[in-house]
Amino acid sequence: MDKVNEIYMQQALEEAHRAALRQEVPIGAVIIYEQDIISVQGNRTRELNDPSAHAEMLAIREACQKLGAQRIPDCDLYVTLEPCTMCAAAIAFARIRRLYFGAQDLKGGAVVSGIKFFDLPTCHHKKIEITSGLLERECGDILTSFFQEKRKAKGISE
Amino acid sequence: MDKVNEIYMQQALEEAHRAALRQEVPIGAVIIYEQDIISVQGNRTRELNDPSAHAEMLAIREACQKLGAQRIPDCDLYVTLEPCTMCAAAIAFARIRRLYFGAQDLKGGAVVSGIKFFDLPTCHHKKIEITSGLLERECGDILTSFFQEKRKAKGISE
Repeated sequence: MDKVNEIYMQQALEEAHRAALRQEVPIGAVIIYEQDIISVQGNRTRELNDPSAHAEMLAIREACQKLGAQRIPDCDLYVTLEPCTMCAAAIAFARIRRLYFGAQDLKGGAVVSGIKFFDLPTCHHKKIEITSGLLERECGDILTSFFQEKRKAKGISE
Repeated sequence: MDKVNEIYMQQALEEAHRAALRQEVPIGAVIIYEQDIISVQGNRTRELNDPSAHAEMLAIREACQKLGAQRIPDCDLYVTLEPCTMCAAAIAFARIRRLYFGAQDLKGGAVVSGIKFFDLPTCHHKKIEITSGLLERECGDILTSFFQEKRKAKGISE
């Protein structure tokens, strides 16, 4: 099962790489339904001028559309970075069954960091199974490189 | 100024009524830019099969598209119900200048209730001005009536 999980996360990671090529913060997400990938999405906040267009949000929206439901309790989500507060809440609304994420986000994360959304008394989706640290190094490295490049480019242009 | 605020909230309330007619939870939102309404949206989670399609989220997405930016710091948001955790985070990402809401949401709210998102150390948008209780009774009544009707309908059909 671990191998399968890595294969799915690898897909999310490839989508994160594609996001970087678009100059988007490199985060990718896939949603699995009955062993099929039903959505692969990368961050598109810049491209869409949409502050809510995080990889997880786009993937949830696509999966919900495909399955014709607001709640997709038989779906699993793989995302390269720990979801933020907005995405954690959306994951709960969608009733995602299992959440796998790669790198931890100490600043913006809301699952094992920050408000720990799923542990809150107001969270209505406590049954979710959460696995962190899947391909953690690769998922973190792509973000580190992206921001290093950004800083370098800024230094040159200034 | 209070009168103007009421006029804008009245528009949000009318949109909430339209949402009820579509059998959506009756919540409405408007976004103002330079004294013009640039977005009026009601909850469409059912219609769109999108758990993120809350009135505020749709309004932020529309306003950002119209202004061609992910951040809209000159915009004010009026929404009939206290935003949830997901929407509060999206409001922060969009850098909304002023937030006005009608009824408080003790269960799902995240502004003056629950996690009080804008007071969190991880929130990057603390400059927001927040006004609660604008047309509070009307904004709350429409929700109360909607859920009473729902329960009544359920009782009859059972």
